[in-house]
Amino acid sequence: MEIIGFIAATLTTAAFLPQVYKTWKTKDVSALSLPMLLMFFVGVFIWLIYGYYKNSPSMIVANAITLCSAFLLIYFKIKYAKTP
Amino acid sequence: MEIIGFIAATLTTAAFLPQVYKTWKTKDVSALSLPMLLMFFVGVFIWLIYGYYKNSPSMIVANAITLCSAFLLIYFKIKYAKTP
Repeated sequence: MEIIGFIAATLTTAAFLPQVYKTWKTKDVSALSLPMLLMFFVGVFIWLIYGYYKNSPSMIVANAITLCSAFLLIYFKIKYAKTP
Repeated sequence: MEIIGFIAATLTTAAFLPQVYKTWKTKDVSALSLPMLLMFFVGVFIWLIYGYYKNSPSMIVANAITLCSAFLLIYFKIKYAKTP
């Protein structure tokens, strides 16, 4: 049954990578909202804790990877943000 | 403990709504990739099934809402896509 979680984890985390790559290449962060990214980052971190309590390896792995993706997007947003 | 899941669910699903709203208002779908959206949609659907097996109400609710968000983005992508 844990295999279902890992299939889901692969699909949803892989769907995030093109966004990270695109932002890294284009340095275009105009479409990204910092409050939204921070909210997402905290949310994923809490999912990670929840996955730990639920004894769910797939949730822990998926959210750990997504946490890195979200962290990179926050880093790009701050680094490439233009003053208006 | 389920409260932790609901806090996480609120944060991560809420982080998606501005994207849906923005796409709806601007009709700008150039940044969205259809294969990525489809992969994400299927992934979230499988998380929903996994949440059911894990007896996790917060995972079921979170993924059901995110599934609607992803469906709307796919709909917008197809509706507003320009021929190159």
